[in-house]
Amino acid sequence: MHRIAVIGASGYTGVELLRLLSLHPDTELVSVTSRQYAGQLVCEVFPSLQGSLDLVFEDVNPKRLAECADLVFTAVPHQTAMGMIPELLDAGCRVVDLSADFRISDVSVYEAWYQEHTAKELLSEAVYGLPELFREQIPTARLIANPGCYPTSVALALAPLLENDLIDPTTIIVDSKSGTSGAGRAAKVDTLYCEVNEGFKAYSLPRHRHTPEIEQTLGLLSGSGVTISFTPHLLPINRGILSTCYASLSSQLTLDALHDLYQDRYASETFVRVLPKGQLPNVSQVRGSNYCDIGLAVDDRTGRVIALGAIDNLVKGAAGQAIQNMNLMLSLPENTGLMIPPVFP
Amino acid sequence: MHRIAVIGASGYTGVELLRLLSLHPDTELVSVTSRQYAGQLVCEVFPSLQGSLDLVFEDVNPKRLAECADLVFTAVPHQTAMGMIPELLDAGCRVVDLSADFRISDVSVYEAWYQEHTAKELLSEAVYGLPELFREQIPTARLIANPGCYPTSVALALAPLLENDLIDPTTIIVDSKSGTSGAGRAAKVDTLYCEVNEGFKAYSLPRHRHTPEIEQTLGLLSGSGVTISFTPHLLPINRGILSTCYASLSSQLTLDALHDLYQDRYASETFVRVLPKGQLPNVSQVRGSNYCDIGLAVDDRTGRVIALGAIDNLVKGAAGQAIQNMNLMLSLPENTGLMIPPVFP
Amino acid sequence: MHRIAVIGASGYTGVELLRLLSLHPDTELVSVTSRQYAGQLVCEVFPSLQGSLDLVFEDVNPKRLAECADLVFTAVPHQTAMGMIPELLDAGCRVVDLSADFRISDVSVYEAWYQEHTAKELLSEAVYGLPELFREQIPTARLIANPGCYPTSVALALAPLLENDLIDPTTIIVDSKSGTSGAGRAAKVDTLYCEVNEGFKAYSLPRHRHTPEIEQTLGLLSGSGVTISFTPHLLPINRGILSTCYASLSSQLTLDALHDLYQDRYASETFVRVLPKGQLPNVSQVRGSNYCDIGLAVDDRTGRVIALGAIDNLVKGAAGQAIQNMNLMLSLPENTGLMIPPVFP
Amino acid sequence: MHRIAVIGASGYTGVELLRLLSLHPDTELVSVTSRQYAGQLVCEVFPSLQGSLDLVFEDVNPKRLAECADLVFTAVPHQTAMGMIPELLDAGCRVVDLSADFRISDVSVYEAWYQEHTAKELLSEAVYGLPELFREQIPTARLIANPGCYPTSVALALAPLLENDLIDPTTIIVDSKSGTSGAGRAAKVDTLYCEVNEGFKAYSLPRHRHTPEIEQTLGLLSGSGVTISFTPHLLPINRGILSTCYASLSSQLTLDALHDLYQDRYASETFVRVLPKGQLPNVSQVRGSNYCDIGLAVDDRTGRVIALGAIDNLVKGAAGQAIQNMNLMLSLPENTGLMIPPVFP
Repeated sequence: MHRIAVIGASGYTGVELLRLLSLHPDTELVSVTSRQYAGQLVCEVFPSLQGSLDLVFEDVNPKRLAECADLVFTAVPHQTAMGMIPELLDAGCRVVDLSADFRISDVSVYEAWYQEHTAKELLSEAVYGLPELFREQIPTARLIANPGCYPTSVALALAPLLENDLIDPTTIIVDSKSGTSGAGRAAKVDTLYCEVNEGFKAYSLPRHRHTPEIEQTLGLLSGSGVTISFTPHLLPINRGILSTCYASLSSQLTLDALHDLYQDRYASETFVRVLPKGQLPNVSQVRGSNYCDIGLAVDDRTGRVIALGAIDNLVKGAAGQAIQNMNLMLSLPENTGLMIPPVFP
Repeated sequence: MHRIAVIGASGYTGVELLRLLSLHPDTELVSVTSRQYAGQLVCEVFPSLQGSLDLVFEDVNPKRLAECADLVFTAVPHQTAMGMIPELLDAGCRVVDLSADFRISDVSVYEAWYQEHTAKELLSEAVYGLPELFREQIPTARLIANPGCYPTSVALALAPLLENDLIDPTTIIVDSKSGTSGAGRAAKVDTLYCEVNEGFKAYSLPRHRHTPEIEQTLGLLSGSGVTISFTPHLLPINRGILSTCYASLSSQLTLDALHDLYQDRYASETFVRVLPKGQLPNVSQVRGSNYCDIGLAVDDRTGRVIALGAIDNLVKGAAGQAIQNMNLMLSLPENTGLMIPPVFP
Repeated sequence: MHRIAVIGASGYTGVELLRLLSLHPDTELVSVTSRQYAGQLVCEVFPSLQGSLDLVFEDVNPKRLAECADLVFTAVPHQTAMGMIPELLDAGCRVVDLSADFRISDVSVYEAWYQEHTAKELLSEAVYGLPELFREQIPTARLIANPGCYPTSVALALAPLLENDLIDPTTIIVDSKSGTSGAGRAAKVDTLYCEVNEGFKAYSLPRHRHTPEIEQTLGLLSGSGVTISFTPHLLPINRGILSTCYASLSSQLTLDALHDLYQDRYASETFVRVLPKGQLPNVSQVRGSNYCDIGLAVDDRTGRVIALGAIDNLVKGAAGQAIQNMNLMLSLPENTGLMIPPVFP
Repeated sequence: MHRIAVIGASGYTGVELLRLLSLHPDTELVSVTSRQYAGQLVCEVFPSLQGSLDLVFEDVNPKRLAECADLVFTAVPHQTAMGMIPELLDAGCRVVDLSADFRISDVSVYEAWYQEHTAKELLSEAVYGLPELFREQIPTARLIANPGCYPTSVALALAPLLENDLIDPTTIIVDSKSGTSGAGRAAKVDTLYCEVNEGFKAYSLPRHRHTPEIEQTLGLLSGSGVTISFTPHLLPINRGILSTCYASLSSQLTLDALHDLYQDRYASETFVRVLPKGQLPNVSQVRGSNYCDIGLAVDDRTGRVIALGAIDNLVKGAAGQAIQNMNLMLSLPENTGLMIPPVFP
């Protein structure tokens, strides 16, 4: 049994990690931390976990964690993560970081979109943990930067097009929509029930912080710099991201040909489901699961392809992908503990 | 008092017409029809209207309607509308048609996207009733083609850009999201509560029938043919459309300059609210009202403008705009009965 | 024009007062206050009101308010209300208080369920403003205690039974369900979107503070003390309360007889809609309106009557009823500005 | 591996059975039937199951099923079930029936609330499969009547009180609220998204068909006939039932004492979670799981106890409980395949 700890387990990503880890056959959860709830039973704060988890929230103590755990998930805000990860690594832990702090390899880009980076020395070591695209380095990594939710949905939807040079990268427009759990569990007026329910809006235009992360990945796939338009929207649902990605095709291509290409590309990927031709993804069909559903359309009138990717932002967009990375790091079958069908309806 | 009839009053657009007409000070509702509910009290079918409306659903009888009503709203499906409107006009009624049948002036385009047109002779006479863009001909029209919900949100969001030649029309991409009332009140598995709730999907890709209507309007505004990409999505809310419209700017323009332009363009339009610079529209802020809220962003990195338009699909996207057209046809102040603030939350 | 002020206009009850007052033909809104938003445009905080209201939030200043306003609505929390109302009255204002501070006439009961009362001397003067039950004293009142949302729904549902001595008051059980706007607009984890959505729970058992208010009203109607069981629940909707009220019938009575009784009792009440026999109320049919819909069932097997009352908690349960009281105080027709049909869907 | 078939797998209960069976380690799903979708891939109709299930919907053929399956779940409407179950049993299958047809042991009661019974001879053999209350006979049963969703939530909430004679059975009032999946997947106007969303209503008053089933179980627990008031309501959520049950205590009892009693009663029951004292259940905390959460309150003022039970109507209220029964019938550990923590948020 591998010994696992979760730092910052009282947000929505944290509680989802706990749910999924409680289903994992080869790990033992040895410590969960939360500044806010330290000393309280986890299942008092999250009654859903009563019967699944019998732990008490602890205060954060990297040294102690490093003693008891082999691998640590950090589910804390950016900037907080970079403050504790060096110490965890020094103490001998391997880390899967769910914050944004180690996702951008170019420190000047990070600092332009976020703030000063205080652990720059780790940036070159950190591995961007999107297994379907960059599986190779994950097993041996000490520090995984777990991808953002929006970037995961976009990268998987566009990868086959960019890998095969089929679209003009300057024409990429990404229109994304996310469920409200993506906004976190902090008490804010903006995410109160009555503010979100029966509403729908775009936000953070034109510079949402996931933009450079998406561009970095698409750039790696295409082999040269990519600049995109990215518009996130807030959906009145708990879970789910749908990204609708537009790009001009470099040459005329049929939907048949593109669909074949996608099926081939993802044939051996358990967690990417290329939908039958003509079918479009619905976030309700991936809820609670680690799947990314992909649908395609070709608009002959405009010469554009529309690639749509749907994920559960808390699973493939956060906790599930983190466990997928953990499995690779621990030399376990990649899908261990993750073969959970979506909950519909 | 002007005598008004509503044909097909048992759908969501119909019941919204009844709600708004019951608030209108200068009209008298003389007849409401519904094949399905003929003989039943309106307020038995729609308890919300108890106390506001004391009528019984009648069967459709164009001749009788023409005798008792000066103006008729047809809120029936396309193809059904074109079957009854000639008779209504012949009998001396003026008609505001909420179907798609008379919106497309080029019959070959209509027939390519819908089906055969059986009242072609009326197409040249029909006036496209989007007052903020084409107000002039409405007062004297005998037949108004009330615009579609998606097209209204898109046309108002993009008009100032096209009228001033500020964008490249070949780059227009429209990503729209609509509440479920837009899908109608017919019993279908696809729009059951559990199928829609906690879900989100695109549909009708790549050829939704509102595409040619949008292109026709944008073409008129720009002075030449426009071909767009249009992707509708289904939102788990009752009411509201948000259209996120992308286009490449023809020259470098600041958000300040664009915002001023929009404010000037719509300064005298009661129902278009250009939001303060930096604020983005939310469908929850127009619910139940005839407003179209517009927000803007300029992405210097890509040279694109993003124009967002939010409406209540049942009001500015259907019944409210129909009454706005009626007011113009009856020489009433255009906003009569429509100065209803949105219901939030 | 009567000059009106609203103190505490930045909660959901406050913004609803502003919406409804903007529709009122005989009043002028002269001042709206909010500690939190003082200095900001109302329509910047509540974009829904852009075009309806051109005021800036002011800081609370009872003296200044008393100079500019004839009547003041206080929409602040209990305890805060009792702190400012004496000063407003002294300065010559009439007050409609939407807090709980003056609803309970017995100060010892108030202090047992809330906290110390610091304006006891006004309790005997305050008039409980539920017009359908206690209309007489409202027109001449200086201080109206506007009823709570739950108590309004329960009192109207049970009044005809108690007034006619048809039920055993010791058997009354009230199971109520409220939309989330009833929980206010303060930032709390408990009312975040993801905490409420797809959830349902009872709360404040067994001693919710509306219990003594309900018991006081039912006691007045029955002529002697009444003790009830009252269970509130939180609904994942924005607006609406449904109270399901159970009681044992004193003698055998048919649904026909009871239905006739209710229709007679409320025949002249604009805002109480006794539904057709066999029909049950749905909160969606009163949304945005001042109606209370009432449905009835008789269970012959158990000898119980079930009376159900549905209101919009922000309208008949708060702002609408406050305006109904204002109309009576200002000798205006009671329904002025309130004949707004519900917004469905 | 036990060979399992599901008849009527295209409703919400059916697809939930498929989800849960795909997680079950000791069974093989050999056939799923659906009249409506015969010939189509299951995962085309339910994209959520792509990757979990590679079967085609077949037409119903009891004989063929009996050949290939050891145990059959019938998830068809009442009356349809009784038409096919005799043939299945004759052919040697064991059956878990999710309809109401074999839940009521007294045929005259069944026929008074439903319709004529055409397989009366099986009523005495059928075992009511609520393991926590009636576990004994399940392992050897040939035909299990899987309990209704409402009855399960009520019976578990009230059992300890009735078994210990602590309440007056004539005072029991059950106020239940169910998510919309309980209304099935047939296309009806009443369960369209816009009809349910932002709404809440009671229905089927005063004679919902689950009443006699609840009364039968409570009667067995109390040792004599029980007549209750039962009011179901429709919640705008996908999944979940909360039943708020009221009864007068026979003698004065503290919450402490009652809470201890419940904890003892359910100490060895995996799927019943008695919440910490003072905590009340929320349907969001059982979503997707087989748990029944129970909360308690004692109202000293009225001498009543309020017992609240929350379940996922599709799991503990249908498919999950059916699998729990299957496990017992197949001599597997009762919780096999069912230790799935709830999905929150």
